[in-house]
Amino acid sequence: MSEVFHTTILGSSAATPTSLRHTSAQVVQHHNKRFLLDCAEGTQMQLRKYKLPLMKIDHIFISHLHGDHYLGLPGLLFTYHLLGREKDLHVYAPPGMQQIIELQYELSQLKPSFNITYHELHDGKQSIYEDEKISIETMLMEHRIPTFGFLIKEKPLPRKICKSAIRKFDIPAESMQPIKAGEDFKTKEGRVIANKEITMDPPAPRSYAFCSDTQYTESFLDQIKGAGLLYHEATFMQDKAEIAREKTHSTTIEAATLAKKANVKKLLIGHYSARYKELHEFRREAATIFPGTFLAEEGDVITID
Amino acid sequence: MSEVFHTTILGSSAATPTSLRHTSAQVVQHHNKRFLLDCAEGTQMQLRKYKLPLMKIDHIFISHLHGDHYLGLPGLLFTYHLLGREKDLHVYAPPGMQQIIELQYELSQLKPSFNITYHELHDGKQSIYEDEKISIETMLMEHRIPTFGFLIKEKPLPRKICKSAIRKFDIPAESMQPIKAGEDFKTKEGRVIANKEITMDPPAPRSYAFCSDTQYTESFLDQIKGAGLLYHEATFMQDKAEIAREKTHSTTIEAATLAKKANVKKLLIGHYSARYKELHEFRREAATIFPGTFLAEEGDVITID
Repeated sequence: MSEVFHTTILGSSAATPTSLRHTSAQVVQHHNKRFLLDCAEGTQMQLRKYKLPLMKIDHIFISHLHGDHYLGLPGLLFTYHLLGREKDLHVYAPPGMQQIIELQYELSQLKPSFNITYHELHDGKQSIYEDEKISIETMLMEHRIPTFGFLIKEKPLPRKICKSAIRKFDIPAESMQPIKAGEDFKTKEGRVIANKEITMDPPAPRSYAFCSDTQYTESFLDQIKGAGLLYHEATFMQDKAEIAREKTHSTTIEAATLAKKANVKKLLIGHYSARYKELHEFRREAATIFPGTFLAEEGDVITID
Repeated sequence: MSEVFHTTILGSSAATPTSLRHTSAQVVQHHNKRFLLDCAEGTQMQLRKYKLPLMKIDHIFISHLHGDHYLGLPGLLFTYHLLGREKDLHVYAPPGMQQIIELQYELSQLKPSFNITYHELHDGKQSIYEDEKISIETMLMEHRIPTFGFLIKEKPLPRKICKSAIRKFDIPAESMQPIKAGEDFKTKEGRVIANKEITMDPPAPRSYAFCSDTQYTESFLDQIKGAGLLYHEATFMQDKAEIAREKTHSTTIEAATLAKKANVKKLLIGHYSARYKELHEFRREAATIFPGTFLAEEGDVITID
């Protein structure tokens, strides 16, 4: 069975919160790890509302320094301090985030109870995180200020050895690892059994491409090709395409067009302009181009296939 | 009839928001003016939730630079910008607030659509605001970092001329103003009528003393004497008096003791430690010393008598 891999939406509003929607934040869970993508004002309250464990987040990714994507970070860090956090915290953000946080710690005369490591994001594709199961790299968005997307990719899983083959060829424990890695097996009698005869393909690696705040661009198309889930902002519907361009944002149709070209499995749209009350037209419009479109709404949990 | 004069509670939690309570913010309305006292994370959402008109706030007062008292200010200012605010905004805060805001405007490459005037608060009683109806002065709290309370006082109203006296002595229009200011009236025949014979006392001026984050101190007792409403933090109940002292906060009994000594009309307590789920014991304990104690809870509107 595959590992848990899903994202929980904490905020879906562009620029300013409304009476219905918070600004950007998502928690991605992969297996037992949780990653916070953007951290708008109110994120710590939203984490509590949806009963997500604050303290299990060790890596926070900030796409860019517009307030609706990071203003909840100082409060979350102060809360970690008040809760007596000791574990290291990693913050991945464009240059300036560290300065904003440190100025506020200095003026409040507090020294955090835990270590914060800042990883500055710069132009060009950067590998910024890796563990035994996944890796995370940046994608370069096209927005008014330096803005980054995050591509969370599973590492290829080892091949699965067929149980029947273990019995049939009497495969010893020490040979399991090489076979899982793709090697052929040599029996005691010296007979070589091709790897594909005794193994099955593992589940294909899944990936989640988080593209927050960008005008339409194909510059990162190669990175998102075949992704299990593409989150792409759709601040406006298509009739506001001109305003979208002016503000370096995207429309429903643009997000769906990119999803189609990238041949992703599912498209998740969000970052809706506060002018829209109802969202079902967003989905309907995007689905004319890409049927597998889902709306990001507070509290939704979307699985990455 | 007296002018409207009340405060609406937007947050009552100390240090960190809980699933039930937001951190500090209140909107005081006097006549047609609205003043925001503290502006914790989520204040802009709370203003919307309680249908308070964001755009009618022109003066924001920040008691001190601990996150639970100001972290909502950057977001509120960004929202003002996005809504196209043009009116001047005044921010009264300890040194450093301007630097925090300006750094974030610089990094987001935004220039606010309106003018912000920063009024720095310093030790000692400062008169910081005045209009035709009220004045506001600071009070010095005793806390870990420079912290200020705000005393909002009505100006004395003019004396009221008795309608019967106007007819009886044939008082002309041009004499009204001097009589309201307390002067005697001279009739056409040269007879002097004592002011108190033809006027009544106006309603007594009311005042609201907002004392956010302080250990017990009587250093501002003179300023709050006879206030219509005293808001005083009560982070802990009395059994945690030692922790309160350590953290330079107050208890229920301490807040009530000060209210009694100052002979205020009503006491409003708030800034409850997140460890407390239920609040009725707070009121009960404070009321043993000062019966006119009220609890600050989100959405409550408390009138200043």
